[in-house]
Amino acid sequence: MTTPFMEQRALYKPRYPEALDTISSLSTESFGNCTSDVSEDQQKQLKGLFPKTYGQPVIKIGHSKTTTATKDAKPLKVAVILSGGQAPGGHNVICGLYEAMQQVSPDSQLIGFKGGSSGILKDDYLVVDKDTADHFRNTGGFNMLGSGRAKIESAEQFATCAKVLERHNVDGLVVIGGDDSNTNAALLAEYFKAKNSKVKVIGVPKTIDGDLKNKYVEASFGFDTAVRLYSELISNISRDAQSAKKYYHFIRLMGRAASHITLEAALQTHPNIVLISEEVELEKKGLFDVVEDIVQVIVQRNKVDKNYGIILVPEGLIEFIPEIKALFDELNDILATNSTYLATLHSFTSKNEYINHKLSKDGSYTFSSLPTDIQRQLLMDRDPHGNVQVSRIETEKLLIELVESRLRELKSEGVYTGDFAHQSHFLGYEGRCAAPTNFDADYAYSLGLTAGALLHLGVTGYMSVVKNLTKSRDQWQAVGVPLTTMMNIEQRNGQKKPVIKKSLVSLSGAPFAKLKEKRENWILNDDYRFSGAIQYFGPPEVCDQLPKSLRLESDDTQSVDC
Amino acid sequence: MTTPFMEQRALYKPRYPEALDTISSLSTESFGNCTSDVSEDQQKQLKGLFPKTYGQPVIKIGHSKTTTATKDAKPLKVAVILSGGQAPGGHNVICGLYEAMQQVSPDSQLIGFKGGSSGILKDDYLVVDKDTADHFRNTGGFNMLGSGRAKIESAEQFATCAKVLERHNVDGLVVIGGDDSNTNAALLAEYFKAKNSKVKVIGVPKTIDGDLKNKYVEASFGFDTAVRLYSELISNISRDAQSAKKYYHFIRLMGRAASHITLEAALQTHPNIVLISEEVELEKKGLFDVVEDIVQVIVQRNKVDKNYGIILVPEGLIEFIPEIKALFDELNDILATNSTYLATLHSFTSKNEYINHKLSKDGSYTFSSLPTDIQRQLLMDRDPHGNVQVSRIETEKLLIELVESRLRELKSEGVYTGDFAHQSHFLGYEGRCAAPTNFDADYAYSLGLTAGALLHLGVTGYMSVVKNLTKSRDQWQAVGVPLTTMMNIEQRNGQKKPVIKKSLVSLSGAPFAKLKEKRENWILNDDYRFSGAIQYFGPPEVCDQLPKSLRLESDDTQSVDC
Repeated sequence: MTTPFMEQRALYKPRYPEALDTISSLSTESFGNCTSDVSEDQQKQLKGLFPKTYGQPVIKIGHSKTTTATKDAKPLKVAVILSGGQAPGGHNVICGLYEAMQQVSPDSQLIGFKGGSSGILKDDYLVVDKDTADHFRNTGGFNMLGSGRAKIESAEQFATCAKVLERHNVDGLVVIGGDDSNTNAALLAEYFKAKNSKVKVIGVPKTIDGDLKNKYVEASFGFDTAVRLYSELISNISRDAQSAKKYYHFIRLMGRAASHITLEAALQTHPNIVLISEEVELEKKGLFDVVEDIVQVIVQRNKVDKNYGIILVPEGLIEFIPEIKALFDELNDILATNSTYLATLHSFTSKNEYINHKLSKDGSYTFSSLPTDIQRQLLMDRDPHGNVQVSRIETEKLLIELVESRLRELKSEGVYTGDFAHQSHFLGYEGRCAAPTNFDADYAYSLGLTAGALLHLGVTGYMSVVKNLTKSRDQWQAVGVPLTTMMNIEQRNGQKKPVIKKSLVSLSGAPFAKLKEKRENWILNDDYRFSGAIQYFGPPEVCDQLPKSLRLESDDTQSVDC
Repeated sequence: MTTPFMEQRALYKPRYPEALDTISSLSTESFGNCTSDVSEDQQKQLKGLFPKTYGQPVIKIGHSKTTTATKDAKPLKVAVILSGGQAPGGHNVICGLYEAMQQVSPDSQLIGFKGGSSGILKDDYLVVDKDTADHFRNTGGFNMLGSGRAKIESAEQFATCAKVLERHNVDGLVVIGGDDSNTNAALLAEYFKAKNSKVKVIGVPKTIDGDLKNKYVEASFGFDTAVRLYSELISNISRDAQSAKKYYHFIRLMGRAASHITLEAALQTHPNIVLISEEVELEKKGLFDVVEDIVQVIVQRNKVDKNYGIILVPEGLIEFIPEIKALFDELNDILATNSTYLATLHSFTSKNEYINHKLSKDGSYTFSSLPTDIQRQLLMDRDPHGNVQVSRIETEKLLIELVESRLRELKSEGVYTGDFAHQSHFLGYEGRCAAPTNFDADYAYSLGLTAGALLHLGVTGYMSVVKNLTKSRDQWQAVGVPLTTMMNIEQRNGQKKPVIKKSLVSLSGAPFAKLKEKRENWILNDDYRFSGAIQYFGPPEVCDQLPKSLRLESDDTQSVDC
């Protein structure tokens, strides 16, 4: 059912690069250079793996001076999937794609496979028409099609995928997804080109985590909305802390491995402490070093009578702590090798005893230093492959337990005199399906138009990219970047695989530098910044904000106010 | 530091009843009738406890036809405190109060005691001037003064309070708080009147929980903002569930005893299941009955291939389940009587063994039916008085564990074939300090103006009340209602005490009737309603919404679209 908010928000017209106004007259005449950051050896390997699609040029999409609008261009038939975790803007990509195709020819047809790539294999789809596009425009969620995490991997799956897409007689497939899904898109593009299929494959960079970015891709859509929602909640909680003066709030933030979300949220809200996984790793901090850092701040704040505060914890933190990472690897190994016997042990105690004598001395030491609840989570709460489910580990509670116990020690020594009261939070699911901000609505829509343009231009193995994101919309530049350009070769499950590189927080980058410059001041002075709820209808300075980290990373804004 | 959101929001001018435009010319000539709902015997007891302030009339605040604006009225000196949990709008009450006093005379002075009533006892205050009011107008949080939960209780505290307030030579004290704080305000009013002090006391109804309402008070401020924020997050999570089709989300909602927040959030978002504590209690459901209800829905949804869903759980639920309530009482008793010995037991196991043999057969049966994590929370995580901390019990996780184990049983019997994956959430602190909605900004500001008017009129022991809240602002009616009118006598810690009655969800009221009418349809049909983020700048139909339960409770709107 509709609501006043949805009715009004549906009226918003996403903005996009001017050039995309007349898709049918676009040309590929203008090329950029294409360079890769990986070693020559890796480039050679990639060329071997992608003989048909490696080494293509970057395409700037625009109008050559000579071409004019082609009337009655050939209609396009295109399939689209939403892949992986939800990100605000997904529906707008599809709207942009649909409308680009309509511009090319009103006889174009878009179908959406349901539930990610498994929808292709099952041939489970719906037709995306004008009503669908209008209904979902500017809404959050991936509920138009549903999403899924499966990849097309086996030779059989590739064949089924080809059979289904060719039966539908599509000209192209658009994969809206993160690094893994875009890697899969590159493999599909190569596969189709190798078998001379007409199916072209285009990827679209999606993820709230912000880890799909590189010298070509400035941002993935969804990041802005998710972080702004988290920032709103963090600043509300900060005000609560400052009003009640009672609790330390440990707030874990979604974002798997990289700490981009936590970094941006910190620049937006000014917490007392912010942990950045990449920094913890670089400084080779152990779990108890991290705990000690937090404890020292709590002791300092207690001295000025502040027994409350805000601590941001990235979801991936625990995997960046070397001893814990090693423990996880050992545990996964033990649990995999002994799964049959372990299945006969039902109680935590019996599993615990068994595991402990299988662990190395280091592993056992680390394991037994963890609170029981966490030990339990590690042993009892496994993913379908039997692996430790890192994203389910409540790192914020782990830290609270260890901080609490260390503070008890310091209290008995008279070093600390406060009462440590605490609350824990995990911000994640509430942000992945929020209605996209103006920025994400515009950006995702533009990515959809660009994907349509790339298919109209007949290229394959490209990512739809929009550049100059910190500039005004008319200066945004639609670009096609070969997916293989973003790849390197990584060891995955014992095999060398070509994958799109995940971008971690760069400790030499401008956003982290800004954080370092500012954060000392946040420890004792409560400089909480109230970023406010996402606004969709108000003045531009409120509704059209950009992520601070994006602005800091761009060349032309050196002095971003944080 | 300021932000674009804050700068723009500061410009909003709260709307208020017309009559409050010229406070200095208001009169008390117009009286309403004052009736109490409690038994004659209780009325008699209350009269005995409040000889000076019981039986005062309700005051409608307006302009008599004969009075004209008094120029150069006597300046007011007033003290204000924020008491109890944060609620959006608290700062606007203070702004309204400040501006009412300025209208009376520019020489009026407002001081705010810090950290609730303990600030009075410590004489810790700040002067609220124009800059303070302008800085905090339309902002969330209680950080202007801080808040506290202490009450003025002992004879000594009453005396200190009087000494401090009289030393400041104030004409009045405004207590912004919930039922307990307003009860305390009533006691203070009586105390000052009995000793012929000039200090008048006025209460203002604050609480996000929505449980401070009665035939005179239509709503407390803060409820609207908090529930709308929670509703936004719930609808985001609903979209996530519908997109990923993977998880059951168990969402616990703040709101202590009463389920008003959960009921309103359900009307806003249409979850698959919503538990209402008051209904569970009326139907005398045990914990396993509640679990079985949830399990049945999960089994039904599994049959139509829906292995995801949204379940709303009120924070207070567990206390409304008779067997659990009895267990808590037993535990509190045992833990209090044996605290010295228990302090010597450090491990959960040793405490557990000791407690179990002290519990009654019923108590022990209930206790051992609970998952270990919950047993641990009950024994290890006590409040400063040694009591079970109900608000810290993760009821959503308790339900998940019990549902999971019951589903395993049904799976082995072949009745259930799904995979039960789940996520748990607690929505609370993120909503208490959000920037107030237009409704809360206006309502709180009007309550502040009304409090100022009541002090100007020289009355004491009144609550500042604004009526006709579902009508347009010009039809809002400022009223003073005697605090004692809302009281009854309750047993508290073995003593009979006069207290303001907490309002629970009425199972015969219109909001619950609407829920009952609708909820059957939500079980299988995902009718998730996307209420959207709180908007402060957009079209009125988006920015000026009212709580659905408030509209349903009002006489003149029978057909509220839910």
